[in-house]
Amino acid sequence: MDIPAVVIDRLPLYARVLESLEHEGQALVSSKELGKRLGVTPAQIRKDLSYFGRFGKQGRGYNVHHLSGELRNILGLDRPWRIALVGIGQLGRAILGYQGFSPQGFKIVLAFDSNPVIIGREIAGLKVRDVAQLERELERQPVDIGIVAVPEGNAQEVIDALVRSNVQSILNYAPMAAQAPPGVHIKRIDPVLALQSMTYYLKDTQVAPLAAS
Amino acid sequence: MDIPAVVIDRLPLYARVLESLEHEGQALVSSKELGKRLGVTPAQIRKDLSYFGRFGKQGRGYNVHHLSGELRNILGLDRPWRIALVGIGQLGRAILGYQGFSPQGFKIVLAFDSNPVIIGREIAGLKVRDVAQLERELERQPVDIGIVAVPEGNAQEVIDALVRSNVQSILNYAPMAAQAPPGVHIKRIDPVLALQSMTYYLKDTQVAPLAAS
Repeated sequence: MDIPAVVIDRLPLYARVLESLEHEGQALVSSKELGKRLGVTPAQIRKDLSYFGRFGKQGRGYNVHHLSGELRNILGLDRPWRIALVGIGQLGRAILGYQGFSPQGFKIVLAFDSNPVIIGREIAGLKVRDVAQLERELERQPVDIGIVAVPEGNAQEVIDALVRSNVQSILNYAPMAAQAPPGVHIKRIDPVLALQSMTYYLKDTQVAPLAAS
Repeated sequence: MDIPAVVIDRLPLYARVLESLEHEGQALVSSKELGKRLGVTPAQIRKDLSYFGRFGKQGRGYNVHHLSGELRNILGLDRPWRIALVGIGQLGRAILGYQGFSPQGFKIVLAFDSNPVIIGREIAGLKVRDVAQLERELERQPVDIGIVAVPEGNAQEVIDALVRSNVQSILNYAPMAAQAPPGVHIKRIDPVLALQSMTYYLKDTQVAPLAAS
């Protein structure tokens, strides 16, 4: 069955809330309570979950432990995933230092850059490899996911090389709309979208015009 | 009217697609075509837009130019917004170097850190100020938005200081669930959620188990 991408995008949020509830010792949860925690209507939650089976009992709610486990299984959250990071500038180093990946099973195992000054150096325990050797390196050590942290102008060629190396999931930090063949999933980390939805709340309370400087 | 946060979150995506259509010279667009471009059902699009008025004519579709302008107005996208960035480590510097903010009207006007080595230095044209002076500085130069790029353990205290300075929109890069009083909007940039929704597509194709190293 072809499940809409927006449904898949919501599942990690569901999984996260269920894990919290599990830690809090809650056994059952209604779609109403889940919806309240997530800002989604109860009907949307029931519809989203119905793609994957019948989890709840009418009027009783969902078994938190069971649903949490099922979602983790559906999303493959209990396995380790290997990542190649391309671009070891300021952003790439911040990504290497990010504490949130490894507790969730995401392990950066390869690092690439094009700058001769840092190729061969060890950064955060990883040797930086020449991006010109990306396809050869990925043939020897395949990865599941690519993270692209290169400047906008180089991002498409890096994505093309990852795709040629059979990387089917790519997280793109460059501010551009990347092209990829069907079957390849590209997610863009886009802080502008997050800011743009916040300005909705601000627009009648703007504190000060920008100085003309 | 209280509009659900998830609806507000989708509006910037709608605005972006409409802007592309406008540049491509398209005059009218159906909710079906918009939905196809966005991975959202046409019904959802009609419902989302109905919160803000009647934009479309039955059977004719939306006027691209008009709807695009309305959404930009609703979201406050045509105005400049002042930002204070807290945390000028690797991540903070990557944010200062990010090319995507300023074309969209987001201007980082203040930079703060706690590291005496960099306080007073100029980075990307901005003097780094002492985070201990944050409230005093924001009293003199108010901002609309705060961006938090400090380590997880310091993020809540920084957010508290921003809130005391009447900053009502905060973009948080730290991997933690921040607390804030009602009326304050915090968005978290969370690359793990993006990775977790991609592993859904990968889970039957994992390329290689992690080495036991």
